[in-house]
Amino acid sequence: MTPFTAPVDDILFSLRSVAGATSVADWDDELAKGIITHFASFAAGVIAPLDESGDRQGCRFDNGWVTMPDGFVAAFAELAEGGWQGLSAPEEFGGMAQNHLIAAAVSEVFSGANHAMQMVCNLVPGAIATLMRFGTDDQKSTWVPKLASGEALSTMCLTEPGAGSDLSRIRTKSTRNGESWRIDGEKIFISGGDQDMSNDILHLILARTGDANSGVKGLSLFIANKAAAGDTIKVTRIEEKLGLHASPTCQMVFDAAPAKLVGQEGAGLAAMFTLMNHARIDVALQGVAHASRAHAISAAYAAERKQGRRADKSDAVLADHADVRRMLDDQRALTMGARAMAHIALVELEKGNRPGLVDFLTPLCKVFCTEAGITSADLGMQVLGGYGYLTEYRVSQTWRDARITSIYEGANGIHSLATATRGLRVGDGADAFDALIGELTDHPAVMTLRDTWRAARRHALNSYDPAVIAHDYMQLTMQLYYRAVWCRIAECDAQYNRLRDVALSRPIPVAPAMMALG
Amino acid sequence: MTPFTAPVDDILFSLRSVAGATSVADWDDELAKGIITHFASFAAGVIAPLDESGDRQGCRFDNGWVTMPDGFVAAFAELAEGGWQGLSAPEEFGGMAQNHLIAAAVSEVFSGANHAMQMVCNLVPGAIATLMRFGTDDQKSTWVPKLASGEALSTMCLTEPGAGSDLSRIRTKSTRNGESWRIDGEKIFISGGDQDMSNDILHLILARTGDANSGVKGLSLFIANKAAAGDTIKVTRIEEKLGLHASPTCQMVFDAAPAKLVGQEGAGLAAMFTLMNHARIDVALQGVAHASRAHAISAAYAAERKQGRRADKSDAVLADHADVRRMLDDQRALTMGARAMAHIALVELEKGNRPGLVDFLTPLCKVFCTEAGITSADLGMQVLGGYGYLTEYRVSQTWRDARITSIYEGANGIHSLATATRGLRVGDGADAFDALIGELTDHPAVMTLRDTWRAARRHALNSYDPAVIAHDYMQLTMQLYYRAVWCRIAECDAQYNRLRDVALSRPIPVAPAMMALG
Repeated sequence: MTPFTAPVDDILFSLRSVAGATSVADWDDELAKGIITHFASFAAGVIAPLDESGDRQGCRFDNGWVTMPDGFVAAFAELAEGGWQGLSAPEEFGGMAQNHLIAAAVSEVFSGANHAMQMVCNLVPGAIATLMRFGTDDQKSTWVPKLASGEALSTMCLTEPGAGSDLSRIRTKSTRNGESWRIDGEKIFISGGDQDMSNDILHLILARTGDANSGVKGLSLFIANKAAAGDTIKVTRIEEKLGLHASPTCQMVFDAAPAKLVGQEGAGLAAMFTLMNHARIDVALQGVAHASRAHAISAAYAAERKQGRRADKSDAVLADHADVRRMLDDQRALTMGARAMAHIALVELEKGNRPGLVDFLTPLCKVFCTEAGITSADLGMQVLGGYGYLTEYRVSQTWRDARITSIYEGANGIHSLATATRGLRVGDGADAFDALIGELTDHPAVMTLRDTWRAARRHALNSYDPAVIAHDYMQLTMQLYYRAVWCRIAECDAQYNRLRDVALSRPIPVAPAMMALG
Repeated sequence: MTPFTAPVDDILFSLRSVAGATSVADWDDELAKGIITHFASFAAGVIAPLDESGDRQGCRFDNGWVTMPDGFVAAFAELAEGGWQGLSAPEEFGGMAQNHLIAAAVSEVFSGANHAMQMVCNLVPGAIATLMRFGTDDQKSTWVPKLASGEALSTMCLTEPGAGSDLSRIRTKSTRNGESWRIDGEKIFISGGDQDMSNDILHLILARTGDANSGVKGLSLFIANKAAAGDTIKVTRIEEKLGLHASPTCQMVFDAAPAKLVGQEGAGLAAMFTLMNHARIDVALQGVAHASRAHAISAAYAAERKQGRRADKSDAVLADHADVRRMLDDQRALTMGARAMAHIALVELEKGNRPGLVDFLTPLCKVFCTEAGITSADLGMQVLGGYGYLTEYRVSQTWRDARITSIYEGANGIHSLATATRGLRVGDGADAFDALIGELTDHPAVMTLRDTWRAARRHALNSYDPAVIAHDYMQLTMQLYYRAVWCRIAECDAQYNRLRDVALSRPIPVAPAMMALG
């Protein structure tokens, strides 16, 4: 079993050299390195050791209350004590006011060390951003300090039975009660809906203020907190899942729960999007974290495990075999490529010059990075063979935990559909993406693929039913970005020329008909 | 949760129409249908209900003995009572003497109903075939009746710590002791190494009779049985695994265990290959079973689950959405295509005219069908979304159980390597495969792909290090077979024209450089 080590040097290389973080106005190179290194050591020492025990023990549910696995309460106290929950919160509310790039690095390390715990803790930055953007002064000054200090954790109460990807079906109602509101309804799949790590829990709830047929326009965003809610907010069960056993996935009932409106009535979806966009990049980084962790486990194993003989009759190890090298190379290339794809999007977000590009890149990163994480975990299991199938080598936990990432925060198919429809028609995202590819590289293989992509884009734009080609179009778009990023990585450091070639020779998982358009 | 139903009509269509089982000498159409239907009903009623409970409860290990999950002992007794363990055993030893095609159909149904239980029971046909081919008259008359009646189950004791894919590292020793032999050593990953369903267990053991450096030529095959072994054969632990919790994966110690030689001294590997080839086609069918089961679960869910609206404003269901249809279509095409690929190989095996072709097709089927099972399970989980990640919808069990199939019975990479080396150089397998493609179809898309494959074959043959391209070559070879089989399926029944087109438009997961050879 390979202990967790955060890939600090890789992250710093990706941020600074590949994604150009050093050109961001408030980037402080020494500070960035210090923060990431500091967190990496905390994650390896305190958080990672609870990943396996948390998976084995799982959360306990008794009588409406959730108990986290052993050690989680103390680890969270240390996390909060270290100020990590307030990393990106404004200084006036007790935060460290670090930018998205630092937050992303910390978040990737957290997810690699313990995805389940990260899930419960890491809805906070999105909640803070949402409150800062849409909340009243009172809401900000009440809640942001509590979230930043770890006094409270937060949830995102969106999904209902029968309303997952389709938010127009949300039936939870909110009714005005003077200055206040009351929420009635049922929510499912609420991560951290209850837990015993924080004193209070702030629920961000999407509920219907319009009539039953008001669709997404009848939705508003509310906050309600556990400490004030008493019996009006109840967890009725936690789900038994394939993975993430230490993240309580709660079914919740709101029974006239007192709540406050955040932002405008009927503008709930727009407010929720702030939260969701945060979460999406965060999920992309979970994918990167799994890809990296699976590679670390299998590379360590393949370097040790003897198999066959070398030409000189000495013992060969697994990593000497071409098929194993192929898998390790693919894992490594996926990890670095996915990370760079996310970091480039975050640098664009931080610079703020091309919001259309950020909107275009976000679903690409969500889909590619989560699939990279799952693929790398799968390859890792294959490298370990029978041992990979055993619990004790841990890569099977990575595989189970990673698998949710292509489902939650918008199933990957939903993002593909959006990219093939809204992504083509709204704003200048696709044009900016086209330009970005040219900025990243002029490698002929990428230029050829961009021609194919341009043809596919025209095809999608003219298509009567883009849904039919959405999957292929998304795959093609992501592969173009992946290859361009890899050329950029190799231009930053020639030691990566070989891996760039690995990336460029990857099969392109797109139907032959679309490839023939170019 | 979708109850298990065996795809009897699909299996019969595939055997009869697609694979041409009716042209096999001893094929009895009515009998075949009767046997398969009968077993399907038994599997649905008795075996399948234990799949979930067996997964939850797992096997118990106390003091060297394994206890199967509740209900398994009684179910096995019914299975044995029905004569199913003797399905392919000779009549003179109490069997039903059915051919490989019937056995394959029953095996697929068994695996779909309960892979874990199937694993423990279904090493028996291979053991019987091995004994019939290499055993003495005494060994045959002693053991085949016990195996056929269910009095005994059998194991395949191959793997050792450090000797999985690399059998030359086997260290378990066998020393002659007059007429008998004694075995000393340790074996791992032994499925059903102990269990309480059968009165006795016959272990088939690969052990070294030559010196430590004698490689695979110093290996011989032995039998030893639990009832006679007393304390000399001990299970020291059972593994904790990702899936197949109801299949005890045993670590075993042999301490001067009395054993009998099967076949010639030093010819152990050849004898074991009989057992392994059986197991490989059986594992391919496990893949088909998982592909089919995952499709059944997700198709049923997608037909019920409401999402969005149709153009006429009525409620749409998941299956109305293009991306979901894409996934369901891929699952269905993979299931039918993989099954046909295996059935065609089995018909060739049964006819016996082209042994080189059977040798060529066996690893193709093992790799393709197992990857099809895993892919279909993965797609099934994606179709169900968050519900797929929950334990209760069962598709996550299919995913966990399916995952071992690309690892055991020769990791898929090992089969790819063999196909790109031995498969090209020995016998007429590749030529016969080339001919088979032409027999299956003359569809232009397949003919074009065959040209690419022929170029890749020449390339592999002339390659200094075929290991480097083995993966791509295997993928290309399998995709050619898959597409050819699909053209054949659609020629058998025009209702499958649409799915043939789905199969023909599948991305070919091969590096662009190899595709450009054609």
